[in-house]
Amino acid sequence: MKIEIVNGPNLNLLGEREPEIYGNLTFEKYFDELKLKFPEIELSYFHSNVEGEIINRLHELRKISNGIILNAGAYTHTSIAIGDAVAAIQIPVIEVHISNVFAREEFRHHSFITKHAKGLITGFGLKSYELALHNFMI
Amino acid sequence: MKIEIVNGPNLNLLGEREPEIYGNLTFEKYFDELKLKFPEIELSYFHSNVEGEIINRLHELRKISNGIILNAGAYTHTSIAIGDAVAAIQIPVIEVHISNVFAREEFRHHSFITKHAKGLITGFGLKSYELALHNFMI
Amino acid sequence: MKIEIVNGPNLNLLGEREPEIYGNLTFEKYFDELKLKFPEIELSYFHSNVEGEIINRLHELRKISNGIILNAGAYTHTSIAIGDAVAAIQIPVIEVHISNVFAREEFRHHSFITKHAKGLITGFGLKSYELALHNFMI
Amino acid sequence: MKIEIVNGPNLNLLGEREPEIYGNLTFEKYFDELKLKFPEIELSYFHSNVEGEIINRLHELRKISNGIILNAGAYTHTSIAIGDAVAAIQIPVIEVHISNVFAREEFRHHSFITKHAKGLITGFGLKSYELALHNFMI
Amino acid sequence: MKIEIVNGPNLNLLGEREPEIYGNLTFEKYFDELKLKFPEIELSYFHSNVEGEIINRLHELRKISNGIILNAGAYTHTSIAIGDAVAAIQIPVIEVHISNVFAREEFRHHSFITKHAKGLITGFGLKSYELALHNFMI
Amino acid sequence: MKIEIVNGPNLNLLGEREPEIYGNLTFEKYFDELKLKFPEIELSYFHSNVEGEIINRLHELRKISNGIILNAGAYTHTSIAIGDAVAAIQIPVIEVHISNVFAREEFRHHSFITKHAKGLITGFGLKSYELALHNFMI
Amino acid sequence: MKIEIVNGPNLNLLGEREPEIYGNLTFEKYFDELKLKFPEIELSYFHSNVEGEIINRLHELRKISNGIILNAGAYTHTSIAIGDAVAAIQIPVIEVHISNVFAREEFRHHSFITKHAKGLITGFGLKSYELALHNFMI
Amino acid sequence: MKIEIVNGPNLNLLGEREPEIYGNLTFEKYFDELKLKFPEIELSYFHSNVEGEIINRLHELRKISNGIILNAGAYTHTSIAIGDAVAAIQIPVIEVHISNVFAREEFRHHSFITKHAKGLITGFGLKSYELALHNFMI
Amino acid sequence: MKIEIVNGPNLNLLGEREPEIYGNLTFEKYFDELKLKFPEIELSYFHSNVEGEIINRLHELRKISNGIILNAGAYTHTSIAIGDAVAAIQIPVIEVHISNVFAREEFRHHSFITKHAKGLITGFGLKSYELALHNFMI
Amino acid sequence: MKIEIVNGPNLNLLGEREPEIYGNLTFEKYFDELKLKFPEIELSYFHSNVEGEIINRLHELRKISNGIILNAGAYTHTSIAIGDAVAAIQIPVIEVHISNVFAREEFRHHSFITKHAKGLITGFGLKSYELALHNFMI
Amino acid sequence: MKIEIVNGPNLNLLGEREPEIYGNLTFEKYFDELKLKFPEIELSYFHSNVEGEIINRLHELRKISNGIILNAGAYTHTSIAIGDAVAAIQIPVIEVHISNVFAREEFRHHSFITKHAKGLITGFGLKSYELALHNFMI
Amino acid sequence: MKIEIVNGPNLNLLGEREPEIYGNLTFEKYFDELKLKFPEIELSYFHSNVEGEIINRLHELRKISNGIILNAGAYTHTSIAIGDAVAAIQIPVIEVHISNVFAREEFRHHSFITKHAKGLITGFGLKSYELALHNFMI
Repeated sequence: MKIEIVNGPNLNLLGEREPEIYGNLTFEKYFDELKLKFPEIELSYFHSNVEGEIINRLHELRKISNGIILNAGAYTHTSIAIGDAVAAIQIPVIEVHISNVFAREEFRHHSFITKHAKGLITGFGLKSYELALHNFMI
Repeated sequence: MKIEIVNGPNLNLLGEREPEIYGNLTFEKYFDELKLKFPEIELSYFHSNVEGEIINRLHELRKISNGIILNAGAYTHTSIAIGDAVAAIQIPVIEVHISNVFAREEFRHHSFITKHAKGLITGFGLKSYELALHNFMI
Repeated sequence: MKIEIVNGPNLNLLGEREPEIYGNLTFEKYFDELKLKFPEIELSYFHSNVEGEIINRLHELRKISNGIILNAGAYTHTSIAIGDAVAAIQIPVIEVHISNVFAREEFRHHSFITKHAKGLITGFGLKSYELALHNFMI
Repeated sequence: MKIEIVNGPNLNLLGEREPEIYGNLTFEKYFDELKLKFPEIELSYFHSNVEGEIINRLHELRKISNGIILNAGAYTHTSIAIGDAVAAIQIPVIEVHISNVFAREEFRHHSFITKHAKGLITGFGLKSYELALHNFMI
Repeated sequence: MKIEIVNGPNLNLLGEREPEIYGNLTFEKYFDELKLKFPEIELSYFHSNVEGEIINRLHELRKISNGIILNAGAYTHTSIAIGDAVAAIQIPVIEVHISNVFAREEFRHHSFITKHAKGLITGFGLKSYELALHNFMI
Repeated sequence: MKIEIVNGPNLNLLGEREPEIYGNLTFEKYFDELKLKFPEIELSYFHSNVEGEIINRLHELRKISNGIILNAGAYTHTSIAIGDAVAAIQIPVIEVHISNVFAREEFRHHSFITKHAKGLITGFGLKSYELALHNFMI
Repeated sequence: MKIEIVNGPNLNLLGEREPEIYGNLTFEKYFDELKLKFPEIELSYFHSNVEGEIINRLHELRKISNGIILNAGAYTHTSIAIGDAVAAIQIPVIEVHISNVFAREEFRHHSFITKHAKGLITGFGLKSYELALHNFMI
Repeated sequence: MKIEIVNGPNLNLLGEREPEIYGNLTFEKYFDELKLKFPEIELSYFHSNVEGEIINRLHELRKISNGIILNAGAYTHTSIAIGDAVAAIQIPVIEVHISNVFAREEFRHHSFITKHAKGLITGFGLKSYELALHNFMI
Repeated sequence: MKIEIVNGPNLNLLGEREPEIYGNLTFEKYFDELKLKFPEIELSYFHSNVEGEIINRLHELRKISNGIILNAGAYTHTSIAIGDAVAAIQIPVIEVHISNVFAREEFRHHSFITKHAKGLITGFGLKSYELALHNFMI
Repeated sequence: MKIEIVNGPNLNLLGEREPEIYGNLTFEKYFDELKLKFPEIELSYFHSNVEGEIINRLHELRKISNGIILNAGAYTHTSIAIGDAVAAIQIPVIEVHISNVFAREEFRHHSFITKHAKGLITGFGLKSYELALHNFMI
Repeated sequence: MKIEIVNGPNLNLLGEREPEIYGNLTFEKYFDELKLKFPEIELSYFHSNVEGEIINRLHELRKISNGIILNAGAYTHTSIAIGDAVAAIQIPVIEVHISNVFAREEFRHHSFITKHAKGLITGFGLKSYELALHNFMI
Repeated sequence: MKIEIVNGPNLNLLGEREPEIYGNLTFEKYFDELKLKFPEIELSYFHSNVEGEIINRLHELRKISNGIILNAGAYTHTSIAIGDAVAAIQIPVIEVHISNVFAREEFRHHSFITKHAKGLITGFGLKSYELALHNFMI
């Protein structure tokens, strides 16, 4: 089973940016831990700050992956195009957020992605990704 | 570790009501399966269709439980009082929904609870409860 | 044919409360008149001021009644949960109101129930219930 | 007792237009049935697709009729002028709709007429007219 | 100097309809008084309850009249088409209302006509027409 | 193949009214040019300033025409009834506008017709009609 | 008969400020003309740029004047307090504006005064004051 | 003179819940102090987390009490039904809140009760109840 | 202890203006009664119809008074500047209104002051001031 | 004459993505057909999922092309920047959509491009491009 | 070159009021520093808490000054009248704010002045005034 | 001191695009002038039309620059992601615009950046950049 984590804008600063919201672990280190925890899953990781490159990656993954864990960062709230890409591909996409987006600014309460995703997991810190992976386990 | 699942209005009809949205497994059967899957957790279950009784139960649990998995059903969208109760108690509350509430009517997109919850898991069918339980595992 | 009239909050004060809007006949007396007018219908009556008890009653009636005439009072405008209960049960539910709710405050113009009801009858005073009963006659 | 049914735009297509919403009985046939059912009422019927002609007819009826059953079709939602005409005449006007307008598009949920009408009956198919006629029976 | 008064829907009921708002003088009688007061103006009068006929009349008048006093009644608030007709013709159009429309329902506060009119006079009872005529006097 | 162009309010003033928006060619002259350009189509033309007469014409055309090119003018933005008529008939209706309605006032940005039309062509001046006719060519 | 014209903020710049909207006649000169035209009226004039001083003047006038012609300038759209003052005094107040406020910015379309005024005259240039004075003539 | 204090949801947690907003005195202790301060008033106390039970209590009190001090907690902002109950009973109801609700979340700024209450006192901590009692003193 | 009552626009007309809302006692007489009732408080009184003078007075009082009872009248709903002044001074400010502002027009339901005030008392007639004074008593 | 078709996000999936909305012909094949149909036009094609690359291409085309047919996909509804680019270049841009965007979700009804485009063609399936090309023919 | 700084409500409390937002330097001291820094500019200073006095001052300055630096404080967000005054005078007006108004309450995000000002400088503390002065330097 | 100017979409067309709004000086020439005016600052310049590349550049600059002058063009109004990037980096960012964005379309009045920026300078033409540089001078 091949699962890819796709991260959007500013998530490359994780561990440095606003640690009171996002914690101070870098995503790369966390990713290594995840791979150890889920040895039965072939886990890969993609990041881009460019909206269109995320769309490109979602398109590519539709033929080579069994599922996607998508944290589109701020594009979650503004990108109809990413939402359309999620709707256009057949494999399951799980939307995750590290912080509890509903406890933050009003404009982070709406997502163009959730409607087309299999489900949403938000607010568990980096553990949100782990819970999403459990969805792919039997 | 003691965890209680608290279900709100109409969830007692699960397995019968709108099966194309909620599936046709009754919650009681699913609850038995859950207990088998998480033997290390002392799992209990509460249901009421009455908003105030859910508040009463949340108050009681604050002293006798380690965590709550709350599916407040339609009260999610209308009850400031349940949201206040979640804010008032110290133990972690995880909000879950069976269906993907963001793929349904507009008025189901707002929750008075999420802001005060530890996190939100929505759209995974009954599996949403299971993912929530994983949060309490080390 | 078994039909139950389900009345919501404050309707127990009928005949006393704001008689210029609701008239001064108590519902009990009106109910007796109704039973005389429709002897071919087995007519019963339920009232509660508690939202959840109305939901409970709707659940019970789904197996023992042929139809429901529902005046949910002020819960009409705030209760997604009662609306969900109406959607969840199979027997026909007719929404009635005594006053012309559209001639009153703005917040009484929206109902979470109508969409799921068979139909709506509003503004005919207590006669609204009688018109609803005619729907069940051949 | 003289009662006139006044129908607005597109209702002349009844039986042909969107039968999944409106059924496939023409109004003329239904009107013949109605006259048989209510022999004690002198029932007449008027239709126009022109907003101003409906207003003209309401003005005429105020002196020669005992009551009006008005289905203004789509003008219900846009015509302040018809609403004013209903307010201006003394005889009772009952608003009816064939479909459950509250289960359809948002813009069909508001009526400029209801506030000035004696009452509203909506959602019972063609039977809505019949229920309205019961209002005029003792 | 030729001036025509154009009245819209329900204004033919003047003197009968809601006299507490509109007074109980018929427009015909008032029109006779007006002609006496302004002998130097060739005054004519048109009424229709049909939106399109008002548009037709505005079109005709553009070549045969020096000015129009327009009380479009309820179409004031809903008819972009009449507003467009006023914008399309070259002769001055003065919008009048008998009642103070801003002291009535919210939906009467907006006019599609005023923007294209020379000016607006509202709230002086039938005297509004007289004040409008003064505008055409040197 | 029979196609009818149906024009709404104020379009009879074309060539005279606000030429900076609509140009100064009358529709009649343009219509003659169109017929020459599309000899294989039996082209007819209807105009009315009355909303209900447009509805009447749409009803008639449903049995005698292969397609309609509809420029409902200002009724586009206010008439649910015309929108319903378009939905009620089976033959294809193409909505056209001469000006770019989206570059004008906010209230011209919404149409009750487009949703039910085959397509929308707006902003090409009188050429909009010609493009619509190309749709009916093989 | 004593009538006072009360002018609000920036109207002292009349004749200088934005002449394409307001013309280039100063109010003082126009006021002299007005007095000549209406010799039977004892006409006075008050101006202030201070909201509270306008309120003070309205209070004083309630005992010493027979009517007020009020152009509150931009305070028209923001001052509930001036609207309250108009409501609090018994003598008739006529609201006037020089420009057609409804043809300008959206925020000039609402007035806190009109509802409490006898009537509104807007868009006739300085002639708006003259039309208002005609109201006080028999 | 008999006065009852009626408290709504979560107010039973007073002294424990969010003490930075509500203080840390339990209501029971405060109630004892109040009775000492106002010996001439026969003071009673009712609490429920159930909306319908609060309605029931308001109904009962209408015949056995001289006044009510109502803190409906979060139901203040969502319950049309409690607002209706306050409107339906004859004895004076004073709405109080401990915190300054207008300094908190937007959704706490609207009350369905105030309109029907004799008055509102908010923001004085527990002293709000005491000020309300002064209203009943001569 | 020095307390000043600061009254805003139109409150000088108390006893004369709309007595069905405000009663017919002048504030001066009521103020004399208040001083007799609270001999232990050094009570003073200020009134202005000018927004900026109220701000000036609030600034002065911040050094010479122990508390302020502020009824800013209609400025309550429009003056961010008075709200800022209340926020800028250290001494406690209690907002009072004579009428129940929440039972009046929608635009009187919002206050720019409450958020920065110690508390709000509204609807008790002139007694609102008295209740506010009780707050300053031990 | 050189015309370029510029397609935005997800349109590369055409023929695969949601065929019930977009059909199952790939754009490449359709493009070949188009070139055959319009041999007198030098037709080129550009696609990108990246908003900024579309802007870059529009900038380049302004000097080397005679016109642009732009289907910006989901960026239509969110990209002020693409709208600005269309406004900034001199050559005509025609906005097209394959589906009838006004028959889909509310958020697809607004375009930042139309206002600056020569015209809009929407809803004709792939034929929308063809109709746009007719605009460039004499 | 003569430039006047015009400050609005509550800015006289600078150095005392909410120092965490505005700093603790009084404006008078800062003004002395400014004069030293820009010896080539004849710098003057005006303050009032009264909206109308600010308007008066802007009127006076239009003939005796080369430019205005305007910090209208809270009137920025509520005063159409000050905005009109800025529009009415010919000399350049630069709007400044000490704090970053867009990082504060929603109601501080709108200004009636900016549209008519030459430019806006906000958020640089007292240095905002200095940057505005640089605009007047060659 | 190292400062970088970061320009967003369409600003590369400066000097060509809509010169009545933006002037006709290219940014490159202006940049040369700026470097001459501020020799004590090490000034660099970056431009991209791609949202994500602007984010990438902001990330890079956080370690190698002392400040940023950011004109994000149209992304200002739509990009939460750029706003987040500004919030995530430690060095001061000053938002500038060439035109007075508040005198243009409504959708240009909101910025996702300002809240996180040190300050905003808008409307001074290219001089806005120069004023921003003055902020970095002692």
